[in-house]
Amino acid sequence: MAELSVKHLLGIKYLNEKDIHLIFETADHFKEVINRSIKKVPSLRDITIANIFFENSTRTKLSFELAEKRLSADVINFSAGQSSVKKGETLIDTVNNILSMKVDMVVMRHPNPGAGIFLSKHVNASIVNAGDGAHEHPTQALLDSYSIREKLGDVAGKKVVIVGDILHSRVALSNIFALKLQGAEVKVCGPKTLLPKYIESLGVSVETDLRKALEWCDVANMLRIQNERLDISYFPTTREYTQQFGVNKKMLDSLDKEIVIMHPGPINRGVEITSDVADSKQSIILNQVENGVAVRMAVIYLLASKIK
Amino acid sequence: MAELSVKHLLGIKYLNEKDIHLIFETADHFKEVINRSIKKVPSLRDITIANIFFENSTRTKLSFELAEKRLSADVINFSAGQSSVKKGETLIDTVNNILSMKVDMVVMRHPNPGAGIFLSKHVNASIVNAGDGAHEHPTQALLDSYSIREKLGDVAGKKVVIVGDILHSRVALSNIFALKLQGAEVKVCGPKTLLPKYIESLGVSVETDLRKALEWCDVANMLRIQNERLDISYFPTTREYTQQFGVNKKMLDSLDKEIVIMHPGPINRGVEITSDVADSKQSIILNQVENGVAVRMAVIYLLASKIK
Amino acid sequence: MAELSVKHLLGIKYLNEKDIHLIFETADHFKEVINRSIKKVPSLRDITIANIFFENSTRTKLSFELAEKRLSADVINFSAGQSSVKKGETLIDTVNNILSMKVDMVVMRHPNPGAGIFLSKHVNASIVNAGDGAHEHPTQALLDSYSIREKLGDVAGKKVVIVGDILHSRVALSNIFALKLQGAEVKVCGPKTLLPKYIESLGVSVETDLRKALEWCDVANMLRIQNERLDISYFPTTREYTQQFGVNKKMLDSLDKEIVIMHPGPINRGVEITSDVADSKQSIILNQVENGVAVRMAVIYLLASKIK
Repeated sequence: MAELSVKHLLGIKYLNEKDIHLIFETADHFKEVINRSIKKVPSLRDITIANIFFENSTRTKLSFELAEKRLSADVINFSAGQSSVKKGETLIDTVNNILSMKVDMVVMRHPNPGAGIFLSKHVNASIVNAGDGAHEHPTQALLDSYSIREKLGDVAGKKVVIVGDILHSRVALSNIFALKLQGAEVKVCGPKTLLPKYIESLGVSVETDLRKALEWCDVANMLRIQNERLDISYFPTTREYTQQFGVNKKMLDSLDKEIVIMHPGPINRGVEITSDVADSKQSIILNQVENGVAVRMAVIYLLASKIK
Repeated sequence: MAELSVKHLLGIKYLNEKDIHLIFETADHFKEVINRSIKKVPSLRDITIANIFFENSTRTKLSFELAEKRLSADVINFSAGQSSVKKGETLIDTVNNILSMKVDMVVMRHPNPGAGIFLSKHVNASIVNAGDGAHEHPTQALLDSYSIREKLGDVAGKKVVIVGDILHSRVALSNIFALKLQGAEVKVCGPKTLLPKYIESLGVSVETDLRKALEWCDVANMLRIQNERLDISYFPTTREYTQQFGVNKKMLDSLDKEIVIMHPGPINRGVEITSDVADSKQSIILNQVENGVAVRMAVIYLLASKIK
Repeated sequence: MAELSVKHLLGIKYLNEKDIHLIFETADHFKEVINRSIKKVPSLRDITIANIFFENSTRTKLSFELAEKRLSADVINFSAGQSSVKKGETLIDTVNNILSMKVDMVVMRHPNPGAGIFLSKHVNASIVNAGDGAHEHPTQALLDSYSIREKLGDVAGKKVVIVGDILHSRVALSNIFALKLQGAEVKVCGPKTLLPKYIESLGVSVETDLRKALEWCDVANMLRIQNERLDISYFPTTREYTQQFGVNKKMLDSLDKEIVIMHPGPINRGVEITSDVADSKQSIILNQVENGVAVRMAVIYLLASKIK
């Protein structure tokens, strides 16, 4: 059987193109199974997975939990709020304690960039990065690419613009790596205060005019605007942001083609996109959520096959 | 097989008498199964249920969770505290996201009256209302009626008084609908500041003298007094409330018959009822809790059979 | 089959030596099963266990949850933070409500010493004390003794020193009971302000010089220092504590024998022990965590066999 080139999913940066194709083919299989209303496959009956979330999360945690349960894995949940972390325990001690209870895989979200990489060097379990600070969020990028492939047949050769706060976004960074690896063309679009200086070194071009970006692209991935970021950068305000970088239906309809609208959620309706855009036929936002479970099942399944 | 007339359980208001009888007969069956120490039935092995609680709850959430697990359904829990709701996501977006992960049924508690109804019009899943503001709490009313039926043989013709804060109580409103539908006579009893003005239009009579109400009834359903409500209405204070509307053993023993004492919990011992009343042979408070699981199993089972 | 002499596990104080041996032999069996990568045994398929935690806990709760799931029991979790307790419900009412839902066993952590004993007299379920204030933490003591037996072959005749805040520690008290019952010699070592006055009446000697204690012992169980305790007792400060009662590698290497280092976790690295001690070959800290699951499986399994 084909195998991933990695033992952990720490970031898209560490994957090769074959890995991505293998994940997608495996996800195709799981999606078909779920669509036939088979909610559970007995694949990982002897695997215990710990979901360790040092940051709040709803959809990502729920999506991982469902993926794990549908693979029949045993699942334990651990949130920092209830934890020894507050008592001053180190990350390695916390995780080693959990692993001593015979846990095979750790899905971790952590506020510090690189937390997953650090952990993978010190503990004996497969690590899945579910978001580490502003660094990477690899399963989000995989489900985004998977959804583009499902909608447009392929990712290679497609033109994708990522709109919003690129500077603080792990979703943006992981998406750029994944899209480039598969041969897509990528632009980023947003206020200059929210674009990182190194961005062009990643093979990505910058477009600060939203209309031009939309005219160019096949797919627009509209990132969520976090109000606290706008406060930090002083410019723009939410209102100014919406005027310059928000997408509404009129703008969409005025383009001479149908572009695909994506959003990692949760949506600020009326800020980065209007409601009629979010709910339009061009939007694949809920498909992204649906595909998230199948893609995470694939990642966990493939990593687990390297444990045994 | 007999079927419910509804796709959702949004309120007792939307049920007919046949629905209630069908739920009770199904609950009889599940109660018997549980009493034979069979903790799990494989009925809903391919159903995924999301418990979405936008308000804290202990007993209701636990009771639903047990009911779901005993039906072998897959269960995911979602509390507003950990959620994207705080980030400004709309209710429909939150629920649609959860549903995109292939969830078949949503059990929801929400502070806003009508939240379940609103949701049922916008999402494609079966909705069970686990309490929506001061509006309805239908499974509580069903388990209350079920417990009266179990104790007294029937609900029709029985005299039931509901004592306490009727104005803010979803339990009172759902009980009134359920009891009237089954042909019981219903009185409400409480301080005038805590009785709604429209109450008599529901076919219910008002009695402000507790002793007279107890002399009249077969069953007294003593609602929990929430101290914060008393603060709002200024009158009565907790102490005055207890003096005028609290039931003690002496009063109970002085009646010329044995009435049944109910309470939806959690009890303020010494406020609405004294400890010796709560623990007396006339009290069916713990039976209510026990029946809650069987009744919820019945509701979920019957609604699920309409999905497939 | 051999049976425990008790219906509940409220404290080591209530066990006899045979009970401890039976628990250990049962744990040996479960540990072997887990090590053969069989993650689940179908033993308790019809048992429902409620984990009721009125105090935060990470490792204990996780360890119990894993033990219960590996026995195939149904598990429901209840934390005080989400609970009716805040609404003024009594402990007995809260637990009776949970039990009315047909729960067979309660694992409870509570801030009040004796809470488990009190409960066992008032409710009809098997109670496992997961820590009650400064009173007892019996499963911790059992897993500690089990780990000593695993490392050194036997507990009888071994010399064990418990170092730290003995006064406020349920771990210390339960360990003293368990070790004495099995015929070990026990010393306690710590600042006088953190030693209880009655300690010698338990058949334990006191040593305030750490070096002498280490020279004497086969095993040193280093308790966690809680900074809030140090604040209360004014003396010593954390720094003074570390200087007088902290163990470092140099001290360990200067002894003329290899002693075993234990710690119930979470560790304050650099306070009660240095990192190189915690991670040394002499440390069995992670074995303790691992053994915790097997020992808790044994306790639950043996108590459950008395229910049926």
